[in-house]
Amino acid sequence: MKNIYIIGIGLIGGSLAIDIKRNDPETVIYGISRKDATLEEALSLKLIDKKATLDDISNADLVILAIPVDATVKLLPTVLDKISDSALVIDAGSTKLDICKAVENHPKRRNFLAMHPIAGTEYSGPSAAISNLFVGKTNIICEVEKTTFKLQEKALELFKSIGMRIRYMNPEAHDKHIAYVSHLSHISSFMLGKTVIEKEKNERDIFDMAGSGFASTVRLAKSSPEMWTPIFRQNKTNVIETLEEYINNLAHFKKLMESDDFEAVFDEMKNTNHIKDILEGIS
Amino acid sequence: MKNIYIIGIGLIGGSLAIDIKRNDPETVIYGISRKDATLEEALSLKLIDKKATLDDISNADLVILAIPVDATVKLLPTVLDKISDSALVIDAGSTKLDICKAVENHPKRRNFLAMHPIAGTEYSGPSAAISNLFVGKTNIICEVEKTTFKLQEKALELFKSIGMRIRYMNPEAHDKHIAYVSHLSHISSFMLGKTVIEKEKNERDIFDMAGSGFASTVRLAKSSPEMWTPIFRQNKTNVIETLEEYINNLAHFKKLMESDDFEAVFDEMKNTNHIKDILEGIS
Repeated sequence: MKNIYIIGIGLIGGSLAIDIKRNDPETVIYGISRKDATLEEALSLKLIDKKATLDDISNADLVILAIPVDATVKLLPTVLDKISDSALVIDAGSTKLDICKAVENHPKRRNFLAMHPIAGTEYSGPSAAISNLFVGKTNIICEVEKTTFKLQEKALELFKSIGMRIRYMNPEAHDKHIAYVSHLSHISSFMLGKTVIEKEKNERDIFDMAGSGFASTVRLAKSSPEMWTPIFRQNKTNVIETLEEYINNLAHFKKLMESDDFEAVFDEMKNTNHIKDILEGIS
Repeated sequence: MKNIYIIGIGLIGGSLAIDIKRNDPETVIYGISRKDATLEEALSLKLIDKKATLDDISNADLVILAIPVDATVKLLPTVLDKISDSALVIDAGSTKLDICKAVENHPKRRNFLAMHPIAGTEYSGPSAAISNLFVGKTNIICEVEKTTFKLQEKALELFKSIGMRIRYMNPEAHDKHIAYVSHLSHISSFMLGKTVIEKEKNERDIFDMAGSGFASTVRLAKSSPEMWTPIFRQNKTNVIETLEEYINNLAHFKKLMESDDFEAVFDEMKNTNHIKDILEGIS
Protein backbone atom coordinates (compact mmCIF):
# COMPACT_ATOMS: atom_id res chain seq x y z
CA MET A 1 0.00 0.00 0.00
CA LYS A 2 1.55 3.20 -1.19
CA ASN A 3 -0.34 6.06 0.45
CA ILE A 4 -1.22 5.56 4.09
CA TYR A 5 -3.05 8.26 6.06
CA ILE A 6 -2.97 8.04 9.82
CA ILE A 7 -5.48 10.17 11.70
CA GLY A 8 -4.08 10.70 15.19
CA ILE A 9 -0.32 10.28 15.51
CA GLY A 10 -0.07 9.34 19.16
CA LEU A 11 0.99 6.17 20.94
CA ILE A 12 -0.94 3.80 18.65
CA GLY A 13 -0.97 5.78 15.39
CA GLY A 14 2.68 6.70 15.73
CA SER A 15 3.78 3.18 16.64
CA LEU A 16 1.89 1.76 13.64
CA ALA A 17 3.60 4.37 11.45
CA ILE A 18 7.07 3.31 12.63
CA ASP A 19 6.58 -0.40 11.93
CA ILE A 20 4.74 0.07 8.63
CA LYS A 21 7.40 2.42 7.28
CA ARG A 22 10.23 0.15 8.39
CA ASN A 23 8.67 -2.88 6.68
CA ASP A 24 7.91 -0.97 3.49
CA PRO A 25 10.09 2.11 3.02
CA GLU A 26 8.30 2.88 -0.28
CA THR A 27 5.11 3.70 1.61
CA VAL A 28 4.33 7.36 2.14
CA ILE A 29 2.89 8.01 5.58
CA TYR A 30 0.63 11.06 5.84
CA GLY A 31 -0.35 12.42 9.25
CA ILE A 32 -3.67 14.09 10.01
CA SER A 33 -4.41 15.79 13.31
CA ARG A 34 -6.61 18.54 14.73
CA LYS A 35 -3.49 20.16 16.12
CA ASP A 36 -0.70 21.32 13.85
CA ALA A 37 1.75 21.08 16.76
CA THR A 38 1.12 17.32 16.89
CA LEU A 39 1.90 16.98 13.20
CA GLU A 40 5.05 19.07 13.55
CA GLU A 41 6.17 16.87 16.43
CA ALA A 42 5.37 13.73 14.41
CA LEU A 43 7.38 15.12 11.48
CA SER A 44 10.38 15.96 13.62
CA LEU A 45 10.23 12.47 15.18
CA LYS A 46 10.06 11.07 11.62
CA LEU A 47 6.85 9.21 12.40
CA ILE A 48 5.22 10.66 9.27
CA ASP A 49 6.52 11.75 5.90
CA LYS A 50 4.01 14.52 5.24
CA LYS A 51 1.25 16.52 6.85
CA ALA A 52 -2.21 16.16 5.33
CA THR A 53 -5.88 17.01 5.85
CA LEU A 54 -9.11 15.06 5.44
CA ASP A 55 -9.52 16.55 1.98
CA ASP A 56 -6.46 14.59 0.81
CA ILE A 57 -7.67 11.08 1.67
CA SER A 58 -9.32 10.43 -1.71
CA ASN A 59 -5.74 9.59 -2.55
CA ALA A 60 -5.41 6.96 0.22
CA ASP A 61 -4.85 3.22 -0.11
CA LEU A 62 -5.27 2.91 3.66
CA VAL A 63 -6.65 5.23 6.34
CA ILE A 64 -6.06 4.39 10.00
CA LEU A 65 -8.04 6.16 12.72
CA ALA A 66 -6.16 6.20 16.02
CA ILE A 67 -8.02 8.89 17.91
CA PRO A 68 -10.34 8.89 20.96
CA VAL A 69 -13.36 6.64 20.40
CA ASP A 70 -15.90 9.49 20.47
CA ALA A 71 -13.96 11.27 17.73
CA THR A 72 -13.86 8.02 15.73
CA VAL A 73 -17.65 7.64 15.90
CA LYS A 74 -18.05 11.21 14.60
CA LEU A 75 -15.34 11.13 11.96
CA LEU A 76 -15.57 7.62 10.53
CA PRO A 77 -18.65 8.24 8.28
CA THR A 78 -16.96 11.33 6.80
CA VAL A 79 -13.78 9.36 6.17
CA LEU A 80 -15.75 6.67 4.34
CA ASP A 81 -17.51 9.39 2.33
CA LYS A 82 -14.20 10.76 1.14
CA ILE A 83 -12.17 7.67 0.26
CA SER A 84 -11.89 5.95 -3.11
CA ASP A 85 -13.76 2.68 -3.75
CA SER A 86 -10.63 0.60 -3.33
CA ALA A 87 -9.36 2.11 -0.09
CA LEU A 88 -9.27 0.34 3.26
CA VAL A 89 -10.22 2.15 6.48
CA ILE A 90 -9.25 0.74 9.88
CA ASP A 91 -9.92 2.08 13.38
CA ALA A 92 -7.93 1.18 16.48
CA GLY A 93 -10.45 2.09 19.18
CA SER A 94 -10.76 0.36 22.57
CA THR A 95 -14.53 0.07 22.14
CA LYS A 96 -16.15 -1.49 19.13
CA LEU A 97 -19.97 -1.46 19.36
CA ASP A 98 -20.67 2.26 18.89
CA ILE A 99 -18.04 2.51 16.20
CA CYS A 100 -19.47 -0.39 14.20
CA LYS A 101 -22.97 1.00 14.65
CA ALA A 102 -21.93 4.42 13.38
CA VAL A 103 -21.30 3.00 9.93
CA GLU A 104 -23.53 -0.08 9.78
CA ASN A 105 -25.63 1.45 7.00
CA HIS A 106 -22.88 3.42 5.30
CA PRO A 107 -22.67 2.66 1.55
CA LYS A 108 -18.91 2.09 1.98
CA ARG A 109 -19.23 -0.16 5.06
CA ARG A 110 -17.34 -2.87 3.17
CA ASN A 111 -14.28 -0.64 2.97
CA PHE A 112 -14.04 -0.55 6.78
CA LEU A 113 -12.40 -2.99 9.20
CA ALA A 114 -12.94 -2.60 12.96
CA MET A 115 -9.95 -3.61 15.06
CA HIS A 116 -8.65 -3.29 18.59
CA PRO A 117 -4.95 -3.96 18.97
CA ILE A 118 -4.36 -4.99 22.61
CA ALA A 119 -1.12 -3.10 22.87
CA GLY A 120 -0.03 0.10 24.46
CA THR A 121 1.66 1.78 27.35
CA GLU A 122 0.44 4.33 29.88
CA TYR A 123 1.96 7.16 27.81
CA SER A 124 0.40 9.19 25.00
CA GLY A 125 1.20 11.60 22.18
CA PRO A 126 3.73 11.31 19.31
CA SER A 127 6.68 10.96 21.69
CA ALA A 128 5.07 7.81 23.15
CA ALA A 129 5.31 5.99 19.80
CA ILE A 130 7.71 3.05 19.84
CA SER A 131 8.78 0.39 17.37
CA ASN A 132 7.64 -3.23 17.67
CA LEU A 133 4.80 -2.30 20.02
CA PHE A 134 2.55 -4.90 18.36
CA VAL A 135 4.85 -7.92 18.18
CA GLY A 136 3.12 -10.95 19.70
CA LYS A 137 0.11 -8.89 20.78
CA THR A 138 -3.52 -9.76 20.09
CA ASN A 139 -5.49 -7.81 17.52
CA ILE A 140 -9.23 -8.22 17.89
CA ILE A 141 -11.15 -7.85 14.65
CA CYS A 142 -14.90 -7.32 14.76
CA GLU A 143 -17.49 -8.05 12.09
CA VAL A 144 -14.84 -9.26 9.69
CA GLU A 145 -17.55 -10.61 7.37
CA LYS A 146 -18.71 -7.05 6.70
CA THR A 147 -15.43 -6.09 5.05
CA THR A 148 -14.68 -6.83 1.38
CA PHE A 149 -12.63 -10.01 1.14
CA LYS A 150 -9.84 -8.32 -0.80
CA LEU A 151 -9.46 -5.61 1.84
CA GLN A 152 -9.55 -8.22 4.62
CA GLU A 153 -6.58 -9.86 2.94
CA LYS A 154 -4.69 -6.58 2.72
CA ALA A 155 -5.38 -5.85 6.38
CA LEU A 156 -4.30 -9.31 7.54
CA GLU A 157 -1.08 -9.02 5.60
CA LEU A 158 -0.38 -5.71 7.33
CA PHE A 159 -1.14 -7.12 10.78
CA LYS A 160 1.08 -10.12 10.10
CA SER A 161 3.92 -7.86 9.01
CA ILE A 162 3.90 -6.08 12.38
CA GLY A 163 3.71 -9.33 14.30
CA MET A 164 0.14 -9.43 15.59
CA ARG A 165 -2.00 -12.45 16.49
CA ILE A 166 -5.58 -12.20 15.21
CA ARG A 167 -8.78 -12.93 17.12
CA TYR A 168 -12.30 -12.55 15.71
CA MET A 169 -15.16 -11.42 17.87
CA ASN A 170 -18.48 -9.61 17.61
CA PRO A 171 -18.55 -6.02 18.91
CA GLU A 172 -20.91 -6.81 21.80
CA ALA A 173 -18.67 -9.60 23.11
CA HIS A 174 -15.59 -7.44 22.62
CA ASP A 175 -16.97 -4.55 24.64
CA LYS A 176 -18.21 -6.83 27.40
CA HIS A 177 -14.98 -8.78 27.84
CA ILE A 178 -12.62 -5.86 27.41
CA ALA A 179 -14.44 -4.10 30.25
CA TYR A 180 -13.07 -6.80 32.57
CA VAL A 181 -9.52 -7.19 31.35
CA SER A 182 -8.79 -3.58 30.43
CA HIS A 183 -11.31 -0.94 31.39
CA LEU A 184 -11.75 -2.12 34.99
CA SER A 185 -7.96 -2.31 35.49
CA HIS A 186 -7.72 1.35 34.57
CA ILE A 187 -10.37 2.42 37.07
CA SER A 188 -8.92 0.25 39.85
CA SER A 189 -5.57 1.86 39.21
CA PHE A 190 -6.89 5.44 39.00
CA MET A 191 -8.86 5.04 42.23
CA LEU A 192 -5.92 3.44 44.01
CA GLY A 193 -3.83 6.42 43.00
CA LYS A 194 -6.55 8.80 44.17
CA THR A 195 -6.91 7.06 47.53
CA VAL A 196 -3.20 7.25 48.25
CA ILE A 197 -2.76 10.80 46.94
CA GLU A 198 -5.64 12.02 49.12
CA LYS A 199 -3.99 10.46 52.14
CA GLU A 200 -0.66 11.94 51.23
CA LYS A 201 -2.04 15.46 51.38
CA ASN A 202 -2.09 15.11 55.14
CA GLU A 203 0.64 12.57 55.62
CA ARG A 204 3.95 13.66 54.16
CA ASP A 205 6.59 11.22 53.01
CA ILE A 206 4.16 8.40 52.41
CA PHE A 207 5.54 7.84 48.91
CA ASP A 208 9.02 7.33 50.24
CA MET A 209 7.60 4.07 51.50
CA ALA A 210 6.16 2.97 48.16
CA GLY A 211 7.90 0.14 46.38
CA SER A 212 7.72 -1.50 43.00
CA GLY A 213 4.49 -3.29 43.91
CA PHE A 214 2.64 -0.01 44.34
CA ALA A 215 4.23 1.39 41.18
CA SER A 216 3.03 -1.60 39.18
CA THR A 217 -0.53 -1.51 40.53
CA VAL A 218 -0.94 2.22 40.00
CA ARG A 219 0.86 2.45 36.64
CA LEU A 220 -2.31 2.78 34.57
CA ALA A 221 -3.30 5.88 36.58
CA LYS A 222 -0.86 7.75 34.35
CA SER A 223 -3.13 7.09 31.36
CA SER A 224 -4.70 9.86 29.28
CA PRO A 225 -8.13 11.09 30.50
CA GLU A 226 -8.75 12.43 26.98
CA MET A 227 -8.54 8.88 25.66
CA TRP A 228 -10.27 7.11 28.54
CA THR A 229 -13.30 9.30 29.26
CA PRO A 230 -14.96 8.52 25.90
CA ILE A 231 -14.12 4.82 26.32
CA PHE A 232 -15.93 4.72 29.67
CA ARG A 233 -18.83 6.68 28.19
CA GLN A 234 -19.26 4.33 25.23
CA ASN A 235 -18.85 1.20 27.32
CA LYS A 236 -20.80 2.56 30.28
CA THR A 237 -23.13 -0.42 30.89
CA ASN A 238 -20.38 -3.03 30.81
CA VAL A 239 -17.94 -0.98 32.85
CA ILE A 240 -20.53 -0.27 35.55
CA GLU A 241 -21.21 -4.01 35.77
CA THR A 242 -17.54 -4.82 36.29
CA LEU A 243 -17.20 -2.01 38.84
CA GLU A 244 -20.16 -3.38 40.78
CA GLU A 245 -18.62 -6.85 40.94
CA TYR A 246 -15.22 -5.43 41.88
CA ILE A 247 -16.68 -3.26 44.65
CA ASN A 248 -18.67 -6.24 45.95
CA ASN A 249 -15.55 -8.38 46.07
CA LEU A 250 -13.63 -5.66 47.93
CA ALA A 251 -16.51 -5.13 50.37
CA HIS A 252 -16.66 -8.89 50.99
CA PHE A 253 -12.92 -9.00 51.67
CA LYS A 254 -13.31 -6.10 54.11
CA LYS A 255 -16.18 -7.85 55.85
CA LEU A 256 -14.10 -11.01 56.26
CA MET A 257 -11.37 -8.93 57.88
CA GLU A 258 -13.84 -7.13 60.15
CA SER A 259 -15.22 -10.44 61.36
CA ASP A 260 -11.67 -11.79 61.90
CA ASP A 261 -12.26 -14.61 59.44
CA PHE A 262 -8.66 -14.79 58.30
CA GLU A 263 -9.03 -18.36 57.13
CA ALA A 264 -11.44 -17.05 54.51
CA VAL A 265 -9.09 -14.13 53.77
CA PHE A 266 -6.38 -16.70 53.10
CA ASP A 267 -8.69 -18.67 50.80
CA GLU A 268 -9.65 -15.54 48.86
CA MET A 269 -5.99 -14.99 48.03
CA LYS A 270 -5.14 -18.66 47.49
CA ASN A 271 -8.00 -19.07 45.03
CA THR A 272 -6.83 -16.03 43.08
CA ASN A 273 -3.19 -17.14 42.97
CA HIS A 274 -3.84 -19.20 39.86
CA ILE A 275 -3.81 -15.89 38.00
CA LYS A 276 -0.11 -16.87 37.72
CA ASP A 277 -0.88 -19.48 35.10
CA ILE A 278 -3.27 -17.16 33.32
CA LEU A 279 -0.72 -14.36 33.15
CA GLU A 280 2.01 -16.57 31.77
CA GLY A 281 0.82 -15.93 28.25
CA ILE A 282 0.77 -12.15 28.70
CA SER A 283 3.95 -10.16 28.35
CA MET B 1 30.09 -10.48 61.29
CA LYS B 2 31.21 -14.06 61.09
CA ASN B 3 28.21 -16.21 61.90
CA ILE B 4 24.91 -15.12 60.42
CA TYR B 5 21.74 -17.10 61.00
CA ILE B 6 18.81 -16.48 58.70
CA ILE B 7 15.44 -17.79 59.82
CA GLY B 8 13.32 -18.20 56.70
CA ILE B 9 15.26 -18.54 53.45
CA GLY B 10 12.68 -17.25 51.02
CA LEU B 11 12.55 -14.20 48.79
CA ILE B 12 13.81 -11.75 51.44
CA GLY B 13 15.97 -14.04 53.60
CA GLY B 14 17.54 -15.68 50.57
CA SER B 15 18.19 -12.38 48.79
CA LEU B 16 19.84 -10.96 51.91
CA ALA B 17 21.98 -14.11 52.10
CA ILE B 18 23.20 -13.68 48.52
CA ASP B 19 24.30 -10.05 48.94
CA ILE B 20 25.82 -10.51 52.40
CA LYS B 21 27.88 -13.51 51.32
CA ARG B 22 29.05 -11.78 48.14
CA ASN B 23 30.20 -8.71 50.09
CA ASP B 24 31.92 -10.77 52.78
CA PRO B 25 32.84 -14.29 51.63
CA GLU B 26 34.31 -15.05 55.09
CA THR B 27 30.85 -14.94 56.61
CA VAL B 28 29.19 -18.28 57.30
CA ILE B 29 25.47 -18.18 56.50
CA TYR B 30 23.34 -20.63 58.48
CA GLY B 31 19.79 -21.33 57.41
CA ILE B 32 16.94 -22.15 59.78
CA SER B 33 13.51 -23.27 58.63
CA ARG B 34 10.55 -25.29 59.83
CA LYS B 35 10.83 -27.36 56.69
CA ASP B 36 13.96 -29.36 55.91
CA ALA B 37 13.05 -29.30 52.21
CA THR B 38 13.41 -25.50 52.22
CA LEU B 39 16.88 -25.78 53.75
CA GLU B 40 17.90 -28.42 51.24
CA GLU B 41 16.70 -26.19 48.41
CA ALA B 42 18.56 -23.21 49.90
CA LEU B 43 21.72 -25.34 50.18
CA SER B 44 21.50 -26.53 46.60
CA LEU B 45 20.94 -22.94 45.43
CA LYS B 46 24.02 -21.96 47.53
CA LEU B 47 21.99 -19.38 49.44
CA ILE B 48 23.27 -20.83 52.73
CA ASP B 49 26.45 -22.55 53.79
CA LYS B 50 24.96 -24.75 56.48
CA LYS B 51 21.71 -25.94 57.96
CA ALA B 52 21.06 -25.03 61.58
CA THR B 53 18.40 -25.01 64.30
CA LEU B 54 17.36 -22.48 66.92
CA ASP B 55 19.58 -24.23 69.46
CA ASP B 56 22.65 -23.14 67.51
CA ILE B 57 22.05 -19.39 67.58
CA SER B 58 23.96 -18.80 70.82
CA ASN B 59 26.84 -18.83 68.38
CA ALA B 60 25.37 -16.03 66.20
CA ASP B 61 26.76 -12.57 65.54
CA LEU B 62 23.58 -11.74 63.64
CA VAL B 63 20.16 -13.38 63.41
CA ILE B 64 17.74 -12.26 60.70
CA LEU B 65 14.08 -13.24 60.87
CA ALA B 66 12.47 -13.28 57.44
CA ILE B 67 9.33 -15.28 58.10
CA PRO B 68 5.61 -14.42 58.16
CA VAL B 69 4.86 -11.66 60.68
CA ASP B 70 2.76 -13.88 62.98
CA ALA B 71 5.65 -16.34 63.22
CA THR B 72 8.01 -13.44 63.97
CA VAL B 73 5.84 -12.26 66.88
CA LYS B 74 5.88 -15.78 68.33
CA LEU B 75 9.52 -16.59 67.69
CA LEU B 76 11.30 -13.30 68.37
CA PRO B 77 11.26 -13.51 72.21
CA THR B 78 12.70 -17.04 72.04
CA VAL B 79 15.41 -15.89 69.67
CA LEU B 80 16.37 -13.07 72.02
CA ASP B 81 16.39 -15.56 74.92
CA LYS B 82 18.89 -17.74 73.11
CA ILE B 83 21.42 -15.28 71.66
CA SER B 84 24.64 -14.05 73.25
CA ASP B 85 24.82 -10.57 74.78
CA SER B 86 26.68 -9.16 71.80
CA ALA B 87 24.48 -10.52 69.04
CA LEU B 88 22.23 -8.44 66.82
CA VAL B 89 18.73 -9.61 65.87
CA ILE B 90 16.85 -8.05 62.95
CA ASP B 91 13.40 -8.78 61.57
CA ALA B 92 12.22 -7.98 58.05
CA GLY B 93 8.45 -8.00 58.61
CA SER B 94 5.94 -5.88 56.66
CA THR B 95 4.25 -4.83 59.90
CA LYS B 96 6.10 -3.32 62.82
CA LEU B 97 3.76 -2.53 65.74
CA ASP B 98 2.94 -6.03 66.97
CA ILE B 99 6.51 -7.16 66.49
CA CYS B 100 7.94 -4.26 68.49
CA LYS B 101 5.31 -4.80 71.18
CA ALA B 102 6.16 -8.50 71.44
CA VAL B 103 9.61 -7.67 72.83
CA GLU B 104 9.13 -4.23 74.39
CA ASN B 105 9.85 -5.59 77.86
CA HIS B 106 12.33 -8.27 76.86
CA PRO B 107 15.61 -8.04 78.79
CA LYS B 108 17.49 -8.23 75.50
CA ARG B 109 15.33 -5.61 73.68
CA ARG B 110 18.50 -3.60 73.01
CA ASN B 111 19.88 -6.44 70.89
CA PHE B 112 16.93 -6.14 68.48
CA LEU B 113 16.47 -3.84 65.50
CA ALA B 114 13.07 -3.66 63.76
CA MET B 115 13.26 -3.07 60.02
CA HIS B 116 11.10 -3.25 56.93
CA PRO B 117 12.99 -3.34 53.65
CA ILE B 118 10.64 -2.03 50.94
CA ALA B 119 11.83 -4.53 48.39
CA GLY B 120 10.48 -7.69 46.91
CA THR B 121 8.75 -9.34 44.03
CA GLU B 122 5.49 -11.26 43.78
CA TYR B 123 7.37 -14.57 44.08
CA SER B 124 8.30 -16.53 47.19
CA GLY B 125 10.48 -19.35 48.47
CA PRO B 126 14.24 -19.95 48.10
CA SER B 127 14.08 -19.96 44.30
CA ALA B 128 12.70 -16.40 44.41
CA ALA B 129 15.91 -15.08 46.00
CA ILE B 130 17.86 -12.71 43.73
CA SER B 131 21.00 -10.66 44.06
CA ASN B 132 20.93 -6.86 44.42
CA LEU B 133 17.26 -6.88 45.42
CA PHE B 134 17.90 -4.10 47.93
CA VAL B 135 19.98 -1.67 45.87
CA GLY B 136 18.46 1.81 46.04
CA LYS B 137 15.48 0.58 48.04
CA THR B 138 14.17 2.13 51.26
CA ASN B 139 14.71 0.36 54.55
CA ILE B 140 12.41 1.58 57.30
CA ILE B 141 13.84 1.25 60.77
CA CYS B 142 11.53 1.53 63.76
CA GLU B 143 12.40 2.48 67.36
CA VAL B 144 16.08 2.80 66.53
CA GLU B 145 16.69 4.42 69.92
CA LYS B 146 15.82 1.14 71.63
CA THR B 147 18.76 -0.68 70.04
CA THR B 148 22.28 -0.56 71.52
CA PHE B 149 24.31 2.06 69.71
CA LYS B 150 27.05 -0.39 68.78
CA LEU B 151 24.57 -2.79 67.19
CA GLN B 152 22.85 0.09 65.37
CA GLU B 153 26.22 0.85 63.79
CA LYS B 154 26.73 -2.75 62.74
CA ALA B 155 23.27 -2.90 61.22
CA LEU B 156 23.68 0.38 59.32
CA GLU B 157 26.98 -0.83 57.92
CA LEU B 158 25.26 -3.97 56.67
CA PHE B 159 22.37 -2.03 55.10
CA LYS B 160 24.81 0.32 53.43
CA SER B 161 26.78 -2.60 52.02
CA ILE B 162 23.69 -3.95 50.24
CA GLY B 163 22.75 -0.51 48.92
CA MET B 164 19.75 0.49 51.02
CA ARG B 165 18.49 3.99 51.88
CA ILE B 166 17.47 4.35 55.52
CA ARG B 167 14.31 5.98 56.89
CA TYR B 168 13.40 6.17 60.58
CA MET B 169 9.81 5.95 61.72
CA ASN B 170 7.77 4.87 64.72
CA PRO B 171 5.91 1.54 64.37
CA GLU B 172 2.44 3.15 64.50
CA ALA B 173 3.25 5.54 61.62
CA HIS B 174 4.90 2.72 59.67
CA ASP B 175 1.87 0.46 59.89
CA LYS B 176 -0.54 3.27 59.03
CA HIS B 177 1.35 4.51 55.96
CA ILE B 178 2.37 1.12 54.63
CA ALA B 179 -1.31 0.12 54.61
CA TYR B 180 -1.82 2.72 51.86
CA VAL B 181 1.22 2.19 49.69
CA SER B 182 1.60 -1.56 50.03
CA HIS B 183 -1.16 -3.49 51.78
CA LEU B 184 -4.04 -1.83 49.87
CA SER B 185 -2.30 -2.41 46.53
CA HIS B 186 -2.21 -6.11 47.26
CA ILE B 187 -5.91 -6.31 48.05
CA SER B 188 -6.87 -4.19 45.02
CA SER B 189 -4.84 -6.56 42.88
CA PHE B 190 -6.17 -9.77 44.45
CA MET B 191 -9.78 -8.61 44.10
CA LEU B 192 -9.22 -7.47 40.52
CA GLY B 193 -7.87 -10.94 39.75
CA LYS B 194 -10.83 -12.53 41.52
CA THR B 195 -13.37 -10.40 39.64
CA VAL B 196 -11.92 -11.32 36.28
CA ILE B 197 -11.38 -15.01 37.08
CA GLU B 198 -14.99 -15.33 38.25
CA LYS B 199 -16.15 -13.85 34.99
CA GLU B 200 -13.90 -16.11 33.01
CA LYS B 201 -15.55 -19.20 34.45
CA ASN B 202 -18.51 -18.44 32.25
CA GLU B 203 -16.81 -16.50 29.51
CA ARG B 204 -14.03 -18.46 27.86
CA ASP B 205 -11.10 -16.80 26.16
CA ILE B 206 -11.38 -13.58 28.11
CA PHE B 207 -7.69 -13.69 29.00
CA ASP B 208 -6.68 -13.79 25.39
CA MET B 209 -7.81 -10.20 25.40
CA ALA B 210 -5.70 -9.17 28.38
CA GLY B 211 -2.69 -7.00 27.71
CA SER B 212 0.27 -5.71 29.65
CA GLY B 213 -1.90 -3.18 31.51
CA PHE B 214 -3.96 -5.93 33.10
CA ALA B 215 -0.83 -7.97 33.82
CA SER B 216 0.73 -5.04 35.64
CA THR B 217 -2.36 -4.23 37.70
CA VAL B 218 -2.94 -7.82 38.75
CA ARG B 219 0.70 -8.79 39.29
CA LEU B 220 0.52 -8.66 43.10
CA ALA B 221 -2.31 -11.23 43.05
CA LYS B 222 0.45 -13.81 42.59
CA SER B 223 1.71 -13.03 46.11
CA SER B 224 1.90 -15.61 48.87
CA PRO B 225 -1.26 -15.94 51.03
CA GLU B 226 0.91 -17.51 53.76
CA MET B 227 2.85 -14.25 53.98
CA TRP B 228 -0.03 -11.84 53.48
CA THR B 229 -2.78 -13.24 55.73
CA PRO B 230 -0.85 -12.50 58.94
CA ILE B 231 0.08 -9.04 57.63
CA PHE B 232 -3.59 -8.19 57.10
CA ARG B 233 -4.46 -9.64 60.50
CA GLN B 234 -1.81 -7.61 62.35
CA ASN B 235 -2.57 -4.41 60.45
CA LYS B 236 -6.32 -4.97 60.42
CA THR B 237 -7.48 -1.53 61.59
CA ASN B 238 -5.32 0.42 59.16
CA VAL B 239 -6.03 -1.86 56.22
CA ILE B 240 -9.79 -1.69 56.79
CA GLU B 241 -9.56 2.10 56.80
CA THR B 242 -7.74 2.16 53.46
CA LEU B 243 -10.21 -0.34 52.00
CA GLU B 244 -13.11 1.83 53.08
CA GLU B 245 -11.64 4.88 51.36
CA TYR B 246 -10.80 2.88 48.25
CA ILE B 247 -14.30 1.40 48.02
CA ASN B 248 -15.83 4.87 48.52
CA ASN B 249 -13.71 6.28 45.71
CA LEU B 250 -14.72 3.44 43.39
CA ALA B 251 -18.40 3.82 44.31
CA HIS B 252 -18.17 7.55 43.65
CA PHE B 253 -16.62 6.94 40.23
CA LYS B 254 -19.40 4.46 39.44
CA LYS B 255 -22.03 6.99 40.52
CA LEU B 256 -20.52 9.64 38.26
CA MET B 257 -20.74 7.20 35.35
CA GLU B 258 -24.32 6.24 36.21
CA SER B 259 -25.36 9.88 36.21
CA ASP B 260 -23.55 10.48 32.92
CA ASP B 261 -21.28 13.07 34.51
CA PHE B 262 -18.32 12.35 32.28
CA GLU B 263 -16.81 15.76 32.87
CA ALA B 264 -16.36 14.72 36.49
CA VAL B 265 -15.08 11.30 35.36
CA PHE B 266 -12.48 13.15 33.30
CA ASP B 267 -11.49 15.30 36.28
CA GLU B 268 -11.15 12.26 38.54
CA MET B 269 -8.55 10.86 36.16
CA LYS B 270 -6.88 14.18 35.39
CA ASN B 271 -6.41 14.91 39.09
CA THR B 272 -4.83 11.51 39.63
CA ASN B 273 -2.48 11.80 36.66
CA HIS B 274 0.09 13.59 38.79
CA ILE B 275 0.90 10.16 40.23
CA LYS B 276 3.40 10.29 37.32
CA ASP B 277 5.63 12.72 39.21
CA ILE B 278 5.24 10.77 42.41
CA LEU B 279 6.19 7.50 40.77
CA GLU B 280 9.29 8.90 39.15
CA GLY B 281 11.31 8.14 42.26
CA ILE B 282 10.12 4.53 42.43
CA SER B 283 11.72 1.89 40.29
